[in-house]
Amino acid sequence: MRAVSEELCKPLPAEDYVVQSMPDVSPPKWHLAHETWFFETFILVQECDGYQPFHPKYAYLFNSYYEGAGPRHPRTERGLLSRPTVEEVYRYRAHVDEAMGALIEEADEAAWRRIDPLLTIGLNHEQQHQELFLYDLKHILGINPLKPAYRDDLPVSNAEAAKFEWLDFAGGIYVVGHDGEGFAFDNERPDHRELLEDFRLGSCLVTNGAYLEFIDAGGYDAPEYWLSDGWASAKRAPWEAPLYWERVEGEWWIMTLAGFQRLNPDEPVCHVSFYEAEAYARWRGKRLPAEAEWEVAAAGVEPEGNFVESGFLHPVPAGAGNGGLRQMFGDVWEWTQSPYAPYPGFAPLAGTVGEYNGKFMCNQMVLRGGACVTPRDHIRATYRNFFYPDQRWQFAGIRLAESVG
Amino acid sequence: MRAVSEELCKPLPAEDYVVQSMPDVSPPKWHLAHETWFFETFILVQECDGYQPFHPKYAYLFNSYYEGAGPRHPRTERGLLSRPTVEEVYRYRAHVDEAMGALIEEADEAAWRRIDPLLTIGLNHEQQHQELFLYDLKHILGINPLKPAYRDDLPVSNAEAAKFEWLDFAGGIYVVGHDGEGFAFDNERPDHRELLEDFRLGSCLVTNGAYLEFIDAGGYDAPEYWLSDGWASAKRAPWEAPLYWERVEGEWWIMTLAGFQRLNPDEPVCHVSFYEAEAYARWRGKRLPAEAEWEVAAAGVEPEGNFVESGFLHPVPAGAGNGGLRQMFGDVWEWTQSPYAPYPGFAPLAGTVGEYNGKFMCNQMVLRGGACVTPRDHIRATYRNFFYPDQRWQFAGIRLAESVG
Amino acid sequence: MRAVSEELCKPLPAEDYVVQSMPDVSPPKWHLAHETWFFETFILVQECDGYQPFHPKYAYLFNSYYEGAGPRHPRTERGLLSRPTVEEVYRYRAHVDEAMGALIEEADEAAWRRIDPLLTIGLNHEQQHQELFLYDLKHILGINPLKPAYRDDLPVSNAEAAKFEWLDFAGGIYVVGHDGEGFAFDNERPDHRELLEDFRLGSCLVTNGAYLEFIDAGGYDAPEYWLSDGWASAKRAPWEAPLYWERVEGEWWIMTLAGFQRLNPDEPVCHVSFYEAEAYARWRGKRLPAEAEWEVAAAGVEPEGNFVESGFLHPVPAGAGNGGLRQMFGDVWEWTQSPYAPYPGFAPLAGTVGEYNGKFMCNQMVLRGGACVTPRDHIRATYRNFFYPDQRWQFAGIRLAESVG
Amino acid sequence: MRAVSEELCKPLPAEDYVVQSMPDVSPPKWHLAHETWFFETFILVQECDGYQPFHPKYAYLFNSYYEGAGPRHPRTERGLLSRPTVEEVYRYRAHVDEAMGALIEEADEAAWRRIDPLLTIGLNHEQQHQELFLYDLKHILGINPLKPAYRDDLPVSNAEAAKFEWLDFAGGIYVVGHDGEGFAFDNERPDHRELLEDFRLGSCLVTNGAYLEFIDAGGYDAPEYWLSDGWASAKRAPWEAPLYWERVEGEWWIMTLAGFQRLNPDEPVCHVSFYEAEAYARWRGKRLPAEAEWEVAAAGVEPEGNFVESGFLHPVPAGAGNGGLRQMFGDVWEWTQSPYAPYPGFAPLAGTVGEYNGKFMCNQMVLRGGACVTPRDHIRATYRNFFYPDQRWQFAGIRLAESVG
Repeated sequence: MRAVSEELCKPLPAEDYVVQSMPDVSPPKWHLAHETWFFETFILVQECDGYQPFHPKYAYLFNSYYEGAGPRHPRTERGLLSRPTVEEVYRYRAHVDEAMGALIEEADEAAWRRIDPLLTIGLNHEQQHQELFLYDLKHILGINPLKPAYRDDLPVSNAEAAKFEWLDFAGGIYVVGHDGEGFAFDNERPDHRELLEDFRLGSCLVTNGAYLEFIDAGGYDAPEYWLSDGWASAKRAPWEAPLYWERVEGEWWIMTLAGFQRLNPDEPVCHVSFYEAEAYARWRGKRLPAEAEWEVAAAGVEPEGNFVESGFLHPVPAGAGNGGLRQMFGDVWEWTQSPYAPYPGFAPLAGTVGEYNGKFMCNQMVLRGGACVTPRDHIRATYRNFFYPDQRWQFAGIRLAESVG
Repeated sequence: MRAVSEELCKPLPAEDYVVQSMPDVSPPKWHLAHETWFFETFILVQECDGYQPFHPKYAYLFNSYYEGAGPRHPRTERGLLSRPTVEEVYRYRAHVDEAMGALIEEADEAAWRRIDPLLTIGLNHEQQHQELFLYDLKHILGINPLKPAYRDDLPVSNAEAAKFEWLDFAGGIYVVGHDGEGFAFDNERPDHRELLEDFRLGSCLVTNGAYLEFIDAGGYDAPEYWLSDGWASAKRAPWEAPLYWERVEGEWWIMTLAGFQRLNPDEPVCHVSFYEAEAYARWRGKRLPAEAEWEVAAAGVEPEGNFVESGFLHPVPAGAGNGGLRQMFGDVWEWTQSPYAPYPGFAPLAGTVGEYNGKFMCNQMVLRGGACVTPRDHIRATYRNFFYPDQRWQFAGIRLAESVG
Repeated sequence: MRAVSEELCKPLPAEDYVVQSMPDVSPPKWHLAHETWFFETFILVQECDGYQPFHPKYAYLFNSYYEGAGPRHPRTERGLLSRPTVEEVYRYRAHVDEAMGALIEEADEAAWRRIDPLLTIGLNHEQQHQELFLYDLKHILGINPLKPAYRDDLPVSNAEAAKFEWLDFAGGIYVVGHDGEGFAFDNERPDHRELLEDFRLGSCLVTNGAYLEFIDAGGYDAPEYWLSDGWASAKRAPWEAPLYWERVEGEWWIMTLAGFQRLNPDEPVCHVSFYEAEAYARWRGKRLPAEAEWEVAAAGVEPEGNFVESGFLHPVPAGAGNGGLRQMFGDVWEWTQSPYAPYPGFAPLAGTVGEYNGKFMCNQMVLRGGACVTPRDHIRATYRNFFYPDQRWQFAGIRLAESVG
Repeated sequence: MRAVSEELCKPLPAEDYVVQSMPDVSPPKWHLAHETWFFETFILVQECDGYQPFHPKYAYLFNSYYEGAGPRHPRTERGLLSRPTVEEVYRYRAHVDEAMGALIEEADEAAWRRIDPLLTIGLNHEQQHQELFLYDLKHILGINPLKPAYRDDLPVSNAEAAKFEWLDFAGGIYVVGHDGEGFAFDNERPDHRELLEDFRLGSCLVTNGAYLEFIDAGGYDAPEYWLSDGWASAKRAPWEAPLYWERVEGEWWIMTLAGFQRLNPDEPVCHVSFYEAEAYARWRGKRLPAEAEWEVAAAGVEPEGNFVESGFLHPVPAGAGNGGLRQMFGDVWEWTQSPYAPYPGFAPLAGTVGEYNGKFMCNQMVLRGGACVTPRDHIRATYRNFFYPDQRWQFAGIRLAESVG
């Protein structure tokens, strides 16, 4: 899994590793170093007697947000650092990987019981940063007037959009959240009961073509469909379409990891904020799913789809199918109407690593299902992702829902 | 009810009517005019043939946030307007009151069916601004180095703090929200089922004395108790105590509407943000109530307490009592852990007045129970107030909750 | 002179005294109090044994920028203070006037030698604030959508524009600056020699009509005429005409202290920044005068003109005349090309009052000649006014110059 | 000369080419490309029929501030561009160099008369950017917590500070400015007469040791020595010493292009703003030289000193000597008291290249003499450099002056 992070970076010239194109973005070399810092800080420094950190300043440079792990370099200034060089960062990775290998080899059972859960978190953390790396790289390339591609050899889907249907789900008392079998993040736990009323979900994701109808109907100029804070965000920017959309001589084009391309109306709409998703749904007279509704519906669906392993690195049309729920996993993260909040009885992990998820449970919205840049084995039906409602650089899209009766 | 707004302003010199001490605050004369604009815009202009607005620019100056009602003066610049003078604003009020009186007198039944609901909203709206006026005036006087009192003749309570107890409530499926009998805001509707697990509530509000323990224990310097966004707010300001607290030669003093006074540890703590309330609860190993828990618990309590009519204009100690829930209504708004979101099936009012509540259902937290500056007949057990989690100038405090088992 | 300040305020309702419409503006009641603080701080506190300041917080509230006089209320927050009320400020003035009267009465010769220069400065300081008050009040009323007049009874000039001529002045070594006879500010001293080459000055001020040609020729969209910092200011704002100009249905109107009025092309252009003045001159192929050129030319001119005593409170057309330099004094301050810098051998006054002028000798430009809101006896040919090059709310206009040969 | 720019970059890893550590800084690869754009835009595009720009977007990306050359990438976002890569930039340079070579080869006399002056400006422009590159690189490395050296092999001077003397210069009418023989920038012309009174200059630059006395005497906490805008800058930052100074365990260290080093008190103080230079001089009871004084004094001095060719890339102690003016050229740019303004009769170059100097003649101060990072043949006694008074990242220091009699 550590190799995957490096594999993803292979197409990059050194210059691409350095840039922070906006505060939400981190330079690729920062990701590579921070993933490594995680193992060094939470495992090696704790478990290896006499372990010498690779560099005395790296704890400062590559701590992301852990108050318990000491002071850190300001997040907004990650792109001001030309050093360490990419090469030095790779040396850092090799150093820590070696030390981790030795530690694992030598661990007795007692040590392993301490190391194993942190190792698992560390690997899941690494996967999250592999995904973030692709968000960030797309942004770094996307804001560049030269509009360079990450890779020229990415496959393209020829599929068409699926036919949209409404699918019914019965209300009732459901158990949602993770039951503790196998790995899950603390924010998915504990499982607990939720009362749902009858609801419907759209069978597939909202497409670019459907979303264009909203744009063409003046949705971005119609405050009546927007939350107040969303309207303020939209006017401030200003927003006239999803992120990475650009009108060139009357035609819509979009930036992708394969470069600048003509918009395909059959693909799922992507890079919309919660505010846009919510406004779109309201304009349709519908709403977004609650996260519990999504989870209950997803419980019967195999967690397969267009994940990073499919190689598109872009959402693809659903294609013809046999009905039922489509695209629940992969393609784009699906905004829900649910604010990111602790489940009843939620307890963060002990120690500094407990800052991982819990302290962000305010002002953000839950997204479900994973995206075309997510590793497939990283996702579960109970997985809770979360972003601020105005963020758009992550691969996020829309599934409609409605109440019944 | 219109007279109450003017009565509240009577102690003010003209200068106090003009100032906007921070963006959240509106100048008192703006409140007086905006309340009036509400009736003019949503009733008189619609219902009275040939009604001439009092002044052609007032629709621009006194629209608060209704996109559907046309362009408006920027919120942050309300304090830059010396005109209209206070006297002109009172003439505006008299003009609209007269026109409203005539309209009501002459309304036939069909007209009355249209006017009555808007009139009721207009009066509830006026009450909300009476309360906001007291928040804002306290801030205007509170940031002034001269620390003037609003009134010198306010009563003072001699009560002591009540004894704190934990009170148990059984889980189950409850109906919460307003059932439609009598007036309620759209955001309280529709009533709907919620599943609650067993829970406990503190019998009374957290006192200044209890909160001081958090301060003295270094709570404002301990990031482990804070949400990430909360910690950022606390450090940015920076916060070292609730709003209006000031340490003078080692003693805590607070600003009140009766002037600058020594802190009474028996009073409920007030002017805390959601972030502070949440950090306090976490430091105690507890949590804040969910809004449904609060509403279920409040259902058995008479909606009486220290409201604006009691004249304290300040939260008062609970005093000895016969046990059970105390201070559920009045004194301070109680922060809940619930993000402000639409109830299942929520539909805003039709037309521009539908912007009243619904468009704010994001990024804010629900508070319950009313405060010492709230009109008593304005409050219900189902009433949902909402503020951003970093706001502190409203009269907001803390009741603890915990889960059971 | 103290009475003049109060006389100027007479037409104001209390509300007008409170507002700070932008950071450069001070509320009228702040001016009234600050003028008084000047006498209290620099004379009464020093000279009167046992003098009790009127209020212990006023030294904090009404210190403008004197670091040596202790901490002070932030300049940008002067409009957040509803108290002290206007009435209290007038009581403060009366208190200090009385104490000053007593002090002057009782002063022996030694005391008088100390008091007299400070008293003179204090009175000149008061005059400067009388002028600033009119700038500030015009801004307070000018940004108000209701566009109220300060007074309805101001006279209007029927004069026409003078005929423009170029007037020649011979170069040589001149003595400029104040020779020390009678009062002058420290920044006018010492007198010193300057070498000038032959130059020409325009006989009268640039008129609105002439300036309109610049606007109509696209001057505000032509970066080639602008200083780089000026262009940035112009685009940031953005500027499309002088301050207070507004196009209403194709016609230019301007705000004046007599209210909103149709532009008179014969009046001198007013409320331009240095950047606009410089761009205008460059567009004409000319330049602004150096301050020494202006002073040498003004030496032969009687210091008379449209000052505050004429009652227009607005620049007026020059009218027909007998040739020669017109409008050198009064009407509008004339931007020069000279950065505000110390004269050779400049020494500020001793003590805290030395902060009056010297510390501002950077980043500002010199203006000469006084304006229609300046007291006539406040002005001399050597008088140096100074503003930042982007400031426009002062009554500033343009006289053209050119080099010869 | 083009090769020098590339030679200077040789020690850099690709990562160092990308970063913009503050708005004033440009990434090294931007300098390399912009220098090239200058020749392409002002010569090749004008003179070569059918010349194809290397890349259609480079005119947008690498225009610095020429309004006449079309729209441009925002200056503050230069560090957000990972592409073009360093390698592509070098290809751009080679492409343009080749085209320039061919153009020069083929130019007939008429063409050469057009090309030659632009070529000379282009080469002087390239030299300015070589110097800016060293400012910027020092900043990029200096803000990095790892404090890397640009080069490890830079020589170190063992000289000591010279003995300070006051040197007298007689007043009179002098001709200053460039007389047109050989190359000079437009801002040095025309030569013209200036009247100077008798003055004195310090024989050598202010040293770190002398400046430390100002720091140790509390100069950074004493507003009485500072200009008002300077004090605001100093408190905002806040400044407690020159840029790149850091106190480590009670000792002062500084960042240099050779890495982080202990402060040498004998070296000239460097990286001070005009505000600090002016405050230091005032604290000493002296002043800064006027630019004409400096030029008159420098007229008798050979333009030799510690320039970039000496290889120190750092100011060095003056060493013992035979008296007279020392360090007038090289080491550090010397702040003067003169605002950067046009000389009488100044006319910018015709066309877009006329934006080179003239439009910056406001709000900046003149510096004289060149620095240890300036090419020796770039400097003349008449050379006028200019920076904003709060800028510190350029190699700027202090020479004292005083008036006589």
